[in-house]
Formats: sequence, C-alpha cells, structure tokens
Amino acid sequence: MMAFCRFIAFEGGEGSGKSTQARLLAEALGAVLTHEPGATELGRRIRSLVLDPAGGHAVDRRAEALLMAADRAQHVAEVIRPALDRGRDVVCDRFSGSTLAYQGYGRGLDIDDLDWLSRWASGGLEPDVVVLLDVPREVAVSRLAGEPDRMEAAGSAFHDRVADGYRRLAAANPARWVVVDGTGPVDEVAARVAAAAG
Amino acid sequence: MMAFCRFIAFEGGEGSGKSTQARLLAEALGAVLTHEPGATELGRRIRSLVLDPAGGHAVDRRAEALLMAADRAQHVAEVIRPALDRGRDVVCDRFSGSTLAYQGYGRGLDIDDLDWLSRWASGGLEPDVVVLLDVPREVAVSRLAGEPDRMEAAGSAFHDRVADGYRRLAAANPARWVVVDGTGPVDEVAARVAAAAG
Repeated sequence: MMAFCRFIAFEGGEGSGKSTQARLLAEALGAVLTHEPGATELGRRIRSLVLDPAGGHAVDRRAEALLMAADRAQHVAEVIRPALDRGRDVVCDRFSGSTLAYQGYGRGLDIDDLDWLSRWASGGLEPDVVVLLDVPREVAVSRLAGEPDRMEAAGSAFHDRVADGYRRLAAANPARWVVVDGTGPVDEVAARVAAAAG
Repeated sequence: MMAFCRFIAFEGGEGSGKSTQARLLAEALGAVLTHEPGATELGRRIRSLVLDPAGGHAVDRRAEALLMAADRAQHVAEVIRPALDRGRDVVCDRFSGSTLAYQGYGRGLDIDDLDWLSRWASGGLEPDVVVLLDVPREVAVSRLAGEPDRMEAAGSAFHDRVADGYRRLAAANPARWVVVDGTGPVDEVAARVAAAAG
C-alpha cells in the first residue's frame, strides 16, 4: 500500500511566527520538522556565508539566490526526499516561496528565472501545501529580538516588498497556498493552521 | 573612444598547464589575471565548501553546480565586469566551460540546464575566446603533485568523461573555442597559445 505523504511548507516574514507554527503542526502530524536555510551540514556553512553580518563583504544578489538554491538542493537530497520516501510527512520552515519573495520581490531578480532555479535545485519537488502566516509589520517587528542577521537588517522597504510579494504568490497559487492570520495567541493561530492545512 | 576589451578563458583538466599558460598570456597582454573558483572572498569560502576533502559530507551534484554558479556570479559582479568596464582585458583560469565539463559531462547533469544556470549567474557574460589546453591524461597525471582535492580525487573514469566533454564543447563551438596542444616545454605551449588567442 502506498502511503500518501505530504510536504507542507511554511512561509512568511521575520517575526511572523512560522517557526513556532511549523513545529506545532509537525508535532500534531508526527511529521519530520525541518527548515531552510541550514538544515544540513553543508547548508549550515552556506547559511553562514549568506546571513552572517560579520562577513563584511557585499554578496551579489544572484550569488545570494544561487547559494540559497544550493542549500535547497542539498536539503532535498539529504533530508526531504529520503523522509518522504520512507513514508513520513515533512513540515518545512521556508522553501521555494522564500526564494521568490526575498530574492525576487525583495531583491528585484526575475520571478520566472528564480522559479526555474528553485525547481531545478529541488529536482522538481514542490510542497503540497504552503501556509503563509500573515501578520502586520508592526506585530512582526515587536516579536523580533536580539542582533539582526543580514536579511533581518535589510530595511523596512525591503521587508514591505517581501510581504507584498508573499501576498501576490498566494493570490496567484490559490490551489496550493493558504493564507492564515498569524496574529493573536500561539494556540489560536495553531488551531487556524490545523484547520487550513492539517 | 570605446576600447574593445577581451575576455579570454582557459579550460582543461587538472595538470593541463592552464594556470601557467593563463598567467603567461595575461602578462603578455597586460591583462587582469583571475580564476575560478575562489577569486573573491565569498568565492574562497564557497571553494572550500566544494573542494575541501576534509569536509567529509557528500555534496549533492546539483548543490555543487549551484555553489560553482554562485562563485561565478560574485566573481563577474566583483572582478570581471568592473575590469572590462574600466578598459582592461581579462584572462580567467576556468569559467563556464568548467561547469559544463565537470558538472555536466563529469557528474551527468543536463548540459542545457547547466548552460542556462551559468549564463544566469554571469548575467549573460561569455568569454570572447576559450582556450582549451589538450594534454594526454598520462601527461596531466605526471604534472600533479601533493594531496588531491575532492575534484582531483574523483577517479579516472570521471576525468575521462570531463576530457571527452571538453573536446565535444570545443567541437560544438568552433567560433569561440580554440584547442591548443598543451604538451612540451612551457614556452612552446605559450607560443601556440599566443598564436591562437593573443
């Protein structure tokens, strides 16, 4: 008997609560919980190249997109595909939607090019469901603490473009994307996520 | 007055002598000499992820190709384009031909996909001339010394596929690629290179 294993991705800006909600849904489903970037040893080293604000060098935007795609290729090959193949559901905190929102709408690279790049990196694997956690910018900012990484520190105009990009992606792919109100207590948001994607 | 600045790439297997010949041609032309991978600070860190045999992790072949492309994007943006824009010729030890030969013919990834990837990484920049240094495998092996990196240690079947791939690329692109006999004394090879590409 073939089990139907699901691959569910969470998307949203910094401070949207998606890491918490991805963990809660994975626990509820008994799914493998993973994340991008940096879920593999290679990916952790790639992540530090892209996000470490101490690096000091200016990372070209195409190089940034390609590094994120390299992290995805390794992640799919080493973690996600093997988990699905052994009959597990997978919940992933960020996937290809992040490439389109951050490197596309945020940095201004062509969306169709990034879509090709991300599909090539993942070997054609796409999430069955993408949960976009939608929170107003001021709520997201109030949740962030500590030293910002390079992406978090990119400025409010950048993050406004990312948030707008996420809304466009969800509107363009209603069969796959669900938008969940991310405001309010964690358990209330978790109930909304479970109703939409569980 | 617009100067016509040339971008010349050297290609060939390990031990083909291309690094030496690239240096000699750059000196003869007064050109900027550079190389892939690892000519930028980001690229040096990427190179260590791909080639360091001490890393121990198995790098997925798509991740490898994407890391090499990220190195290229940063290299073009930070080094090659600025040099051409300020009126300098550029001589580069390895460029997109290496992606096609190593990750394509060597690792078995689709050549058209890699061609798209490499052009996207370089923003469409291609060499005006590609010099392929052709040496028999036994000559190349006799020139290599020291601890092999991950690519050098990939085995003779892999390197045979790379060498065969280089010959196919040159045959398919005769307007851009020149094949130079890389055997014999360095100055004789340099004279052949200068006649073919200088």
